[in-house]
Amino acid sequence: MCILNTGGFAVEEKSISKAVIKRLPRYYRYLGELIEEGIERISSNELSAKMRVTASQIRQDLNNFGGFGQQGYGYNVPYLYEEIGKILGLDKTHHMIIIGAGNLGQALANYVKFEKRGFKIVGVFDINPVLKGISIRGNGIRMMSELPEFLQKEDVQIAALTVPKSSAAEIAELLVQNGIKAIWNFAHLDLNVPKDVIVENVHLSESLMRLSYNLTVAEQKEEK
Amino acid sequence: MCILNTGGFAVEEKSISKAVIKRLPRYYRYLGELIEEGIERISSNELSAKMRVTASQIRQDLNNFGGFGQQGYGYNVPYLYEEIGKILGLDKTHHMIIIGAGNLGQALANYVKFEKRGFKIVGVFDINPVLKGISIRGNGIRMMSELPEFLQKEDVQIAALTVPKSSAAEIAELLVQNGIKAIWNFAHLDLNVPKDVIVENVHLSESLMRLSYNLTVAEQKEEK
Repeated sequence: MCILNTGGFAVEEKSISKAVIKRLPRYYRYLGELIEEGIERISSNELSAKMRVTASQIRQDLNNFGGFGQQGYGYNVPYLYEEIGKILGLDKTHHMIIIGAGNLGQALANYVKFEKRGFKIVGVFDINPVLKGISIRGNGIRMMSELPEFLQKEDVQIAALTVPKSSAAEIAELLVQNGIKAIWNFAHLDLNVPKDVIVENVHLSESLMRLSYNLTVAEQKEEK
Repeated sequence: MCILNTGGFAVEEKSISKAVIKRLPRYYRYLGELIEEGIERISSNELSAKMRVTASQIRQDLNNFGGFGQQGYGYNVPYLYEEIGKILGLDKTHHMIIIGAGNLGQALANYVKFEKRGFKIVGVFDINPVLKGISIRGNGIRMMSELPEFLQKEDVQIAALTVPKSSAAEIAELLVQNGIKAIWNFAHLDLNVPKDVIVENVHLSESLMRLSYNLTVAEQKEEK
């Protein structure tokens, strides 16, 4: 097994392309599945066949982090899984709050796997007084008016924003003012935040439009 | 205004890169906002400032579809909005079903805007008998056993899959066997479907991991 010190590499070494970062969680998922199947070792060719990515792409991607593979042995699955987990920051616990306790917010709050990956949901907030105190997996829904004080007392890094577009910008500002470092944005607008605040967007409408585009192209082909 | 026949262009002309298609829904969103603000005309420079994309990128992207802009006039907003809508297939109505009436499935079923964009939800399915008949915006939840007959009778193109990973592969196969042409996949696995079936993935865990990666890099920078 190749021994590699990964402490702080992501900052120190050359910057990693967005495309590679986008693919890492998929590697992590497949490696997790291999572990569940009891597979300890895999060649880039075998992994390539499973993931439908070329073996050279896999080698190239993983070389960004110094490799991990060994000629003639392949990859040590649990080791690679753990290392990619570290790269993704999954070896640490991050505290997350959810703003907006509608269906989508509740879906996130109920998703057990996030906690397994180190994302601990420590609060759920809404403006609807009817929801006040209702418990979602141990978190009583709090009112938005309690948010600033909550953030000043608690150590929270991530806020998931599942509120209507109309209130998202204002809430994002409030979050940033109160020290939130990363926003997982489900609202259908681009947030205007300081550069040091991370925004990861999930625009469901845009995803559906891409599906619609591809479906339309396929339908046009079929009509010919 | 530039007059342009867009009938079937997407198939006839050179294939459009995935990156451009990925950006189109964002153009559509911004143009929709401009219309709401009563703005009829915009230059690529003004649009560039709003969208934080270079003006040359905008011109290049829209040139894929023959342009739409006119020197010295800029873009006609309602016209461009409509044309991009056509490209995305939003001028047609598509019928969609939702498989899995958990929080996420209910969030999708309750999202009014999809219908405005031409995605009509015609059925919601689950395996949980407790949910049977419960109405979500006029759609009584149906049992999975009713699905094959439903798909044979009704004209459905799209299925949103919001079920656990463990049952997603089997359900996808059933959907394809019964004529579904596009799957909006929220399950955390890659579906193995025939080439002519479109799959659009929304992997929330992977999105959260990308956020975690960026947050971790930022935290490492801060520690220095």
